[in-house]
Formats: sequence, structure tokens, C-alpha cells
Amino acid sequence: MTYEADTFREALKIVEEISAGRKMLAITDKNVETLVDFPASLPVYALNPGEDSKSVDSLVAVWKFLVSRGATRQSLIINVGGGMVTDLGGFASATFMRGVDYVNIPTTLLGAVDAATGGKTGINLLGLKNEVGAFRLPFATILVPSLFSTLPRQEILSGYGEMLKAGFLHSAELADRMLSVSPTADSLGALTMEALKVKEDIVARDPEEMGLRKVLNLGHTVGHAFEEVAMKQQHPVPHGVAVAYGLLAELVLAHIHFCFPSEWLYRLSEKLKSEFPPLCYDCSQYEWLLELMGGDKKNDNHGEILFSLPESPGKCHWNVFLQTEEICNGLDICRDLLGI
Amino acid sequence: MTYEADTFREALKIVEEISAGRKMLAITDKNVETLVDFPASLPVYALNPGEDSKSVDSLVAVWKFLVSRGATRQSLIINVGGGMVTDLGGFASATFMRGVDYVNIPTTLLGAVDAATGGKTGINLLGLKNEVGAFRLPFATILVPSLFSTLPRQEILSGYGEMLKAGFLHSAELADRMLSVSPTADSLGALTMEALKVKEDIVARDPEEMGLRKVLNLGHTVGHAFEEVAMKQQHPVPHGVAVAYGLLAELVLAHIHFCFPSEWLYRLSEKLKSEFPPLCYDCSQYEWLLELMGGDKKNDNHGEILFSLPESPGKCHWNVFLQTEEICNGLDICRDLLGI
Repeated sequence: MTYEADTFREALKIVEEISAGRKMLAITDKNVETLVDFPASLPVYALNPGEDSKSVDSLVAVWKFLVSRGATRQSLIINVGGGMVTDLGGFASATFMRGVDYVNIPTTLLGAVDAATGGKTGINLLGLKNEVGAFRLPFATILVPSLFSTLPRQEILSGYGEMLKAGFLHSAELADRMLSVSPTADSLGALTMEALKVKEDIVARDPEEMGLRKVLNLGHTVGHAFEEVAMKQQHPVPHGVAVAYGLLAELVLAHIHFCFPSEWLYRLSEKLKSEFPPLCYDCSQYEWLLELMGGDKKNDNHGEILFSLPESPGKCHWNVFLQTEEICNGLDICRDLLGI
Repeated sequence: MTYEADTFREALKIVEEISAGRKMLAITDKNVETLVDFPASLPVYALNPGEDSKSVDSLVAVWKFLVSRGATRQSLIINVGGGMVTDLGGFASATFMRGVDYVNIPTTLLGAVDAATGGKTGINLLGLKNEVGAFRLPFATILVPSLFSTLPRQEILSGYGEMLKAGFLHSAELADRMLSVSPTADSLGALTMEALKVKEDIVARDPEEMGLRKVLNLGHTVGHAFEEVAMKQQHPVPHGVAVAYGLLAELVLAHIHFCFPSEWLYRLSEKLKSEFPPLCYDCSQYEWLLELMGGDKKNDNHGEILFSLPESPGKCHWNVFLQTEEICNGLDICRDLLGI
């Protein structure tokens, strides 16, 4: 269930109503803790901000916090933060006493349209993202768009990247509206709930990613590779920004493989050039990129690279196998479109 | 799915067949590792034996083992051992890459009829049993009764205690057969699969213990309290032995509360006196026992003590609230029956 609230205080009121008297405890990070107003009566555990906290040590610390504050199977955990907090807090909730209910209140636009819904929880291990975790849907997600108004532009764009993906998964009509907007916290506010519902509908039909849910990986096979290369080259880009570029690359592949209409490629590449920070790669990196694309754990591929590719907006295939040459062609065309 | 095999080697053949070519990895403990014959080609991680290994550290070690040996979402984990191994190995499997399939090959009779089926996985935290974990059913359980033939008598009795519980949950006919047998590895062999099926049938109808599954707690509310007190007094008893005594105490409570037929109380107490090591308690410990009974995490009770109690063999109620006086009366009568 997804709710919308004007303020954080109002979001907590909604949680209190749906909790029906259950004991509540909150997980957050130390940045968010200073930005929102937790009532003194609510036990709060604040993690250090940043991806490094998505660790075994933090998980154990949260488990111990829950024990020390007398949480039971009937408690309700409230995760307030970005993807790190909702992923880790969700995993702690999924495993504490073999599972307690949790509510997510995302504080980033990316978190709102990505990590805070869908029930994929987890932590990193040995440098591998979400290497351990669990599927457990949140009891509720509460959107507070006003929390996004202070986000830096990069963070807004990161959420926008994931929203664009949702648009192409849903329909030409939604993709068009997503591309027509100039991305700001205000202008994206109304579209956030729509993007989130696209994801929730898909997840409801395949919660544990046996098949269909893989379409949510659109943009991510190439996007994760872009993200990793950018990070290793000391020019990190936010996740959703990498996904936006990955989306363009994969729509090019969809064009090659399924005749996905080229008009969308032009519109998306114009948007990237006008609104997004540049992302650079050249053919000397293709081998590296291909290797990273093959390593995604959603790819039950024995080394082959599988994609989720639409034949048109709203009609996406998954487990699409492409030859290396096709992929390299696509990366070439993508560079042409971006003028890099 | 449950299979039976004559030897460990044959059990592995069954696993290989049902694995359909998937990568296999095994979790065990160092005692079991010396007793059974793992093929050299199978990656094996051996934990230190004993309940102390059911820890966060071991869990992380197993996760890292899975990463280092290239396990994927399509791998099959084989847990070979007692309850510690199947609980921890099951939890590692339930969470590695958000869940991979696992097979249990229990090496103790208690494990066979209790931990190895039903999908309750977990580890201990801060001295609390199974404080974190997950529900995930094994892909298969493979019984190898020949593995039980070298178990010490206490271990046989521990399994027998849990089997008696299953008999009373199922029917007068099965309870009668369970009580008629003289408990040895050989004589219990045939009954093991029946006891296990009683549990599997109940779990299939309520895998996440929303209601009905709580009947499997029969004998455990008092049994866990007996186990804890015995341990704290430096006279530890095996889990299933404490459960057998707890079963008698709870059947007495069932007699008081639901007129459960008294003939069974006499038969069970005779069996305990003739076959089991003695268990002693007196009224100076009632307060302590009551406190322990109230703390069980299956009891969503706000401090009240709830029981699973049958009105007759095969007809069990759950969430039965009893007054403190009723419970103390029951503990008195139980002592009379045991002559302690």
C-alpha cells in the first residue's frame, strides 16, 4: 500500500494509524536524523550515511537495537532514508524473529521510485551489491514529496532516470509525459506516484523475479556497467543517471533487435544532452563493459549477457540474448546519438 | 519433498538427480565431516560443532564461502548435520542472493523430525535462540536412518521426544504406536518418516505460523522452560528430552482445561520413568518456569502465557490462555505422575 503525505509529521500520523497500536521503532541515517523531526517517544537507530553502511556490521547493529528496545514479531519498523536505509532496514525487518512488518518513508527521489518499493532488501558483502538479502514487501510506503525539495540536482536527476525507465515500461503516453517534463523536484512530484505504481503492478505479478519482474532491469544491464566504470575511473555518477544512459543504450539495442521506434532514441538522447551531466566512454572500454554486463546476478546466463528490451513502449521482453557484436554496435550508435 | 536413502552416498545420488545439473555446495560441521564421505568434487564448508556456531560469525563465513566458490542463484546448497547446521545453512541459503534452494540431510534423529523440515531457519543472537532467521522451505529433505545408528542414547531419546509430540498431534492410533515402541535407532526408523509427515502436513497448511502451525509448539512452552532451567542449573538435558517432559506437563494442562483423557497421561509418564533420564523440578522453581514460559517469541501475548493444547489426540487447539493457578496445578500433578 502506498500513501502520500505533505509533511514527515503527517507521514508518521499515517504510520501510527495503520500500525493499529503496535510498537514502532525507526531506522534512519545520521543526516536524515537531523533533517526530520522524530518524536522523542519513538526509538530511533541512526546509521552512518553512505553505501559503506550497507554492511553486515550495520545489520547486526540494527538487530541488536531491535532486541535492546524490546521489538517483537508484532512490532512495526519504520525505515526513513534513501536506498541504503530502506534496503538494510528492510532486510533487518525481514529476518528479525523471521520477519516483522516494515514501512518505508523514502527521503530521496531515487529511493521513492526504486528501493523503497518492491520488497528487494539486502546488504553488500565483499564489495558485491545486495549479495545477501531477502524478498519481503513493505507493509506500506509513504511518499512525502516535500522531502525531495532540498535534494541536490544530481539526486533529482538520479530519480528521474529511474522514472524514465518506468515510463517506457508502461506506455508511450507515460514515456511521452516523462520526457516532456523539465526535471525538478516540483515538476516530478506528480509523476513520482505514477512511476511507483508501474513498479508495484509489475512486482505484484512476480514478487520473487521468476520472470516478468526482470523487465524492471531495463536500462540496468548497461547502466550498472556504466556506473561501475565511472566509479573505477574516479568520476562516479549517481545510480539513476547511469541508468538513464543505460536506458538509452538498451533502447538502441531494442531498436536493432526488435525495431523499437527510433523517434524515442532521439528524444531521450536530446533529454540526456540537455539535462544530464555528461557520461563518457569509448570503444577501448567495450571489453570491460561487456564483462560487467555479464556479471549481473539477475542474469542466470552461464556467462551470456541477457537483456530486458522493449519492442515498443509498454511491451517489454526479458531474457533477451544478444551477441557481442550486436551490443558493440549498439554502444557505437549510442555514442553517435550522444555526440561522444 | 522427502526422500529416504540407505546410505549417505545414496542420498547424494538423489540430490544429484533432483539438482538437474545445478552447481552444488555443502555445509556441515567438523564432526559430521569425519563421519560421512563427501566426494572430493563437492565444495564443503565445515563449521565447528555445537550450538555456539549458530552465530552471526558463522553465517557470514558461510556467505563468504558461497561467494568464494562461485555459488549463484541457481546453485543448490546441501546441509548435512544436526539442527545447528540445517538452521544456519538454511538461513544462509534463504538470504544468499535473496534465496537459493537447499536440501537437508539430517544426521540426528532430532534434526530429522524437527529442524530439518518446516522451513524455519535462523541463528542465535545475544543468547536468544533463533532470534534472526527466515521462513524458507527446503527444496528437499533426505532421511538416511543408517546415520542414526551410532547416535548416543540421549540423542535417540531427544528425537523420540519430538516424535511423541507428532503422534499426539496426529491421532490416537499414531500416539499409541509411538508409545508402544521401545526407543532405539532401529525401532524408531520406520516411525521417523511418519513423524516428519505429520509436521510437513501442518506446515504446508500454514508455512509462516499465522495460526495452525502453532500446534507444533505442543510440549514446547513448558519444555523450553524445563530446558532452560536444567541448563542454568548445570544439568543440561537434550532438547527433545525436555520436550517429552514438557509434553507430559502440557497434556496434564489439557486434561485440566479440555478433559484430555487421563489414560494417556499415565502411559506417557510410565514411558518417561522407564526410558528417559530423570528431570527434577519443585515448586520453588514455579515462578522462574512461569517467567520463561511467558517469554517464548511464538507467544504474541503481551506477557500472558498461551499454550497449544489438545482436547484429544489429533485435535489440538492453539493460543489457549491459562491462568497462573491452572499452570501451577498442572505442574503439581505432573510431579505426582513422575513421582518427583
